Amino acid sequence: MENFSFYVPTTVHFGKGQLANLASSIKQFGGTKVMLAYGGGSIKANGIYAAVTDELEKAGIPYVDCDGIRPNPPVADVRKGIAIYRENHCDFILAVGGGSTIDAAKAMAAGVCYDGDVMDLMADGNGEIKAAAPLASILTMAGTGSELDMGGVITGEVNHKKHTIMHPFLYPKFSILDPAFTFSVPEKHSMAGCFDAFDHLLECYFVAGSESTDVQNMMNEGLMRSIVKNAPKVLANPEDYDARANIMWASSMALAGFQFAAGKKGSNWPMHGMGHELSSLYDMTHGITLALIAPSYLAYTLEKVPEYTWLFAAFARNVFGVTEVEDALAAQLGIAKVKEFTLTLKMPNNLKEAGVAEDKLDYLAEKATEWGSIGALCPINKEDALEIYRRAFEN
Amino acid sequence: MENFSFYVPTTVHFGKGQLANLASSIKQFGGTKVMLAYGGGSIKANGIYAAVTDELEKAGIPYVDCDGIRPNPPVADVRKGIAIYRENHCDFILAVGGGSTIDAAKAMAAGVCYDGDVMDLMADGNGEIKAAAPLASILTMAGTGSELDMGGVITGEVNHKKHTIMHPFLYPKFSILDPAFTFSVPEKHSMAGCFDAFDHLLECYFVAGSESTDVQNMMNEGLMRSIVKNAPKVLANPEDYDARANIMWASSMALAGFQFAAGKKGSNWPMHGMGHELSSLYDMTHGITLALIAPSYLAYTLEKVPEYTWLFAAFARNVFGVTEVEDALAAQLGIAKVKEFTLTLKMPNNLKEAGVAEDKLDYLAEKATEWGSIGALCPINKEDALEIYRRAFEN
Repeated sequence: MENFSFYVPTTVHFGKGQLANLASSIKQFGGTKVMLAYGGGSIKANGIYAAVTDELEKAGIPYVDCDGIRPNPPVADVRKGIAIYRENHCDFILAVGGGSTIDAAKAMAAGVCYDGDVMDLMADGNGEIKAAAPLASILTMAGTGSELDMGGVITGEVNHKKHTIMHPFLYPKFSILDPAFTFSVPEKHSMAGCFDAFDHLLECYFVAGSESTDVQNMMNEGLMRSIVKNAPKVLANPEDYDARANIMWASSMALAGFQFAAGKKGSNWPMHGMGHELSSLYDMTHGITLALIAPSYLAYTLEKVPEYTWLFAAFARNVFGVTEVEDALAAQLGIAKVKEFTLTLKMPNNLKEAGVAEDKLDYLAEKATEWGSIGALCPINKEDALEIYRRAFEN
Repeated sequence: MENFSFYVPTTVHFGKGQLANLASSIKQFGGTKVMLAYGGGSIKANGIYAAVTDELEKAGIPYVDCDGIRPNPPVADVRKGIAIYRENHCDFILAVGGGSTIDAAKAMAAGVCYDGDVMDLMADGNGEIKAAAPLASILTMAGTGSELDMGGVITGEVNHKKHTIMHPFLYPKFSILDPAFTFSVPEKHSMAGCFDAFDHLLECYFVAGSESTDVQNMMNEGLMRSIVKNAPKVLANPEDYDARANIMWASSMALAGFQFAAGKKGSNWPMHGMGHELSSLYDMTHGITLALIAPSYLAYTLEKVPEYTWLFAAFARNVFGVTEVEDALAAQLGIAKVKEFTLTLKMPNNLKEAGVAEDKLDYLAEKATEWGSIGALCPINKEDALEIYRRAFEN
């Protein structure tokens, strides 16, 4: 097992009615004037905005709105938030929304404490995060896990490139997770969120060094299994509290710092890398891009690293209950189950069906590997990426 | 799913050579004079003491020793530590050892900030923990999980009763987990530690309300499975780094605050309660008492709550790979596997073999239920407890 560190300082208040902890928690972390960051207004339609502001008003905590944060949040939205925060002399950021809103709020939290442009603070920038405003989240859509991790993804101005921002200062101070807040999430986004969480686990599972990490592998398998069981329940009944609760907690656990990739050789999240290029070019929903890429990526990787057939077989058996005793066959069945799972979640069948143009595949492969090869079990260079995109195009 | 909160602020540095983080981590939390708390001197024999003090000396951090902390730590040892800390004007406690040492250090951390006697601060006492000295741990024996939780168990003066101390202030600021530090733990204690960790998971698994907690159940199953796989490897080769690493991380995860009992109806840790009485009366190793109680407790509970047969069956299949399709039979096979596992770990076969006198069973049952019935799937009163002890006596 490789060395690792574990650190998850966020307090989670999970369950019905946990919004009651909002005001006292903000005060606990010194917040006296809050910037409320949110998206396109669905929280106004479903009553969450009113419930949140009511809690703030009852406690006498003033707030200003930073609304209109878009999916795949563009840096312009982050800059807008930084300006609002400064103009209004806020000292606390409360993100109310899903992954995009929380990710944007993290970048704002770092940006308000930095003199230069916030793009400098991205992982590929020249700046350094030396401080951040305290932030917290109220989750209204499960999937990204941003509510319990220290990272975010922001869309830059050049070619809509995705940039990562990450620092321990960016852990939310607290996150309020009320499964009932996700009842009104549209089916498409609920299912995309389920696959996003599932894919985070895949990215941490199929990683070199997994021979020595039974604890991480086996906890991961359990978590994936819980998503496979509960996502169809959410599909069947969007107001199934326990199913929503399991999906919400699984999504958070998938990214929490005890990290299922901890102790392995490290992953650069190749499926996410390839998916981000699809989102950049077509503004596709993140979880959908992952569902489109995952089966082809896994099948291609298995061909490249037959020595990891045992891992694919364990995955098949322990996540999907495949009973085949022969490893090579079990491994194939497991990948087929992933594909089947994406279809259960009503994801598009392939890139073609999702509206991707075949003549863009080369460009996508080029961009996905422009900083070098990706991959977690074996290197994926441009040619490999192109083959994966090709298979995903019409499989 | 029931509401819950999640909070685990401890930073873990896991792996070979992580002791290198010691001095900087102490300074990060403001430590300028350290009280080094440890047990009977095994850390001097195996070189860990020298390695730790070398790190402190290199960094110019003064320290004083608080040695001789005993297993099932008596409150006298805690009081001694409080006195040493105060006399020497320390401002940081570093526990180097296993669960007993870390538990005692937690009580010391609370006690040094309290004017009255430390026993007041136990869960059944009249005092309140309003502050605690910063403490950290260097783990030298896996099992209790005290390195990543906020509780401890102290043996009182009256009848050697076990008392719990618990508060968020008592989370270690950081814990250094180097699996190589556990290579020299004697077989008996290594195996008792494995079962202790396993039993923490059992206590969180067989709890009312498990119908709605797939995430917690399935992660728990994975973690139990990792212990079942790796404990025999430690037995076969005490210097198997990866096996020791898996046991160490599984033990920590078993008690970390994301809590496999979170979202259930709550457990009062009945097996621990019944085991503590054995430790109190016979000064038995904690993990051994659990191995003696668990199979009988599970079998008896299953008889009482046949409506939870599905949970016992899931346990059998997902932890021990039982393939029986009929739930009632699978459930029985799972319990038999637990018993078999205790014997694999070379635990005594029954209470009789462990030296317990048959005429003490009534007293044990009386003590275990003196504050009311225990049990997590159904109430266990004195008569139930007596029947469980009886079965454990000669099964």
